[in-house]
Amino acid sequence: RKTMLEKAKNLINAAERKAAEIGVPMVITVVDDGGNLVAQHRMDGALLASIAISRDKAYTAVALKMPTHQAAALAQPGQPLFGLNTIDGGRLVIFGGGLPIIDNGKIVGGIGVSGGTVDEDIAVAQAALAAW
Amino acid sequence: RKTMLEKAKNLINAAERKAAEIGVPMVITVVDDGGNLVAQHRMDGALLASIAISRDKAYTAVALKMPTHQAAALAQPGQPLFGLNTIDGGRLVIFGGGLPIIDNGKIVGGIGVSGGTVDEDIAVAQAALAAW
Amino acid sequence: RKTMLEKAKNLINAAERKAAEIGVPMVITVVDDGGNLVAQHRMDGALLASIAISRDKAYTAVALKMPTHQAAALAQPGQPLFGLNTIDGGRLVIFGGGLPIIDNGKIVGGIGVSGGTVDEDIAVAQAALAAW
Amino acid sequence: RKTMLEKAKNLINAAERKAAEIGVPMVITVVDDGGNLVAQHRMDGALLASIAISRDKAYTAVALKMPTHQAAALAQPGQPLFGLNTIDGGRLVIFGGGLPIIDNGKIVGGIGVSGGTVDEDIAVAQAALAAW
Repeated sequence: RKTMLEKAKNLINAAERKAAEIGVPMVITVVDDGGNLVAQHRMDGALLASIAISRDKAYTAVALKMPTHQAAALAQPGQPLFGLNTIDGGRLVIFGGGLPIIDNGKIVGGIGVSGGTVDEDIAVAQAALAAW
Repeated sequence: RKTMLEKAKNLINAAERKAAEIGVPMVITVVDDGGNLVAQHRMDGALLASIAISRDKAYTAVALKMPTHQAAALAQPGQPLFGLNTIDGGRLVIFGGGLPIIDNGKIVGGIGVSGGTVDEDIAVAQAALAAW
Repeated sequence: RKTMLEKAKNLINAAERKAAEIGVPMVITVVDDGGNLVAQHRMDGALLASIAISRDKAYTAVALKMPTHQAAALAQPGQPLFGLNTIDGGRLVIFGGGLPIIDNGKIVGGIGVSGGTVDEDIAVAQAALAAW
Repeated sequence: RKTMLEKAKNLINAAERKAAEIGVPMVITVVDDGGNLVAQHRMDGALLASIAISRDKAYTAVALKMPTHQAAALAQPGQPLFGLNTIDGGRLVIFGGGLPIIDNGKIVGGIGVSGGTVDEDIAVAQAALAAW
């Protein structure tokens, strides 16, 4: 039986392969169901800003139990959760690239990807989850 | 004569019953007239993000002397208080779920509810106040 | 089978009884095994500073897997962990009043008590654990 | 030619082997010469507090260009750098477990290890550097 760290490394390896395939260096973070970090990798050349963004996307996906691109829609001006991104110490990311990790219908963690466009980040996060 | 903690527990118990009734686990916080925490409960399964959001909603209702859904309208782009949510260390929540607790026409505290949609959070906060 | 919130309330009720018995109003917090808040109560008259201290003591007991009074000894000048209290956003408390909650030999959460002397805080935390 | 991420993974793998050998789960972080995170792994069962401590130890070793156990001596009461640990947002760790990574006489990064006693943390960090 695999440890959570081994499972996280598998996800991150798959994310790195996908990121290399599309030619964009990324930062990938996996957190557990308490929102606490399990593993984080920054590929050479990735944006420095992505270190915090990747970490906070992974946290947000667990803390809100939804993909961060869903939070994006809810937090626009005039929408129900406008202002969401400034609460909780500013850790709640309201754009795509964070996904909950679901195992047997239960959220067991989150993955956060940052470095490309939002669509690229989401694609890499999805490629990672396919390796769960 | 009841202590503030006993009154806060009554409100929170009523909130938990309402949340259970609509089937959404929530976090509920009561603060006093100084905006300082009296009691906070996280129901099993509630969003982790709701810990901070519930606390900050209760504070905001006291700090602004209004329901947080009123602050929402005032803080939209183009409205008078745009940017409100980033002041005061990011503690001012600009969406619904926080209500002042009023006793004999005077604000004696605030309640903050988080975990469902904004409408659900407001409904639970109102159910709690009915137990005052 | 009890929820974590119900178990936390039992611990906090026992703590409140002990605090009332010794005549010192206290703040009591219970967190889960991820260090995230489950419940917090502030007794009328308790120190405002105890709100944060109680919360951080509960977190520290889980984060360091030891009673906070053990961390106190290790963090004195000249001792191995001098400086511990300023890391992790300043959340690691290095005086007594925080205890891990142990169930079947496993840490399932933490309790933090603040409001009295360190010895009083520890006594109240221990009285709470007896109710687990 | 290896990327910095590949080199960091090698160090962390060596650290994990050493930590497993002494039977203490640890968190290991590698940062680059800018003090910015390259990779971080939390072994199952490691202390939650070690997430921040490991990261900050790696940063400190680069930021001060010295092992963190040397900073410990300088930061004691009465010594020249007393108070060091509270500057820089509280990121400067003044106990052992952080080492600079030196390549051809030049500091190219830092490694931070947390989870055991200070001596265990230092031993694991040294075992990691042997894999550079």
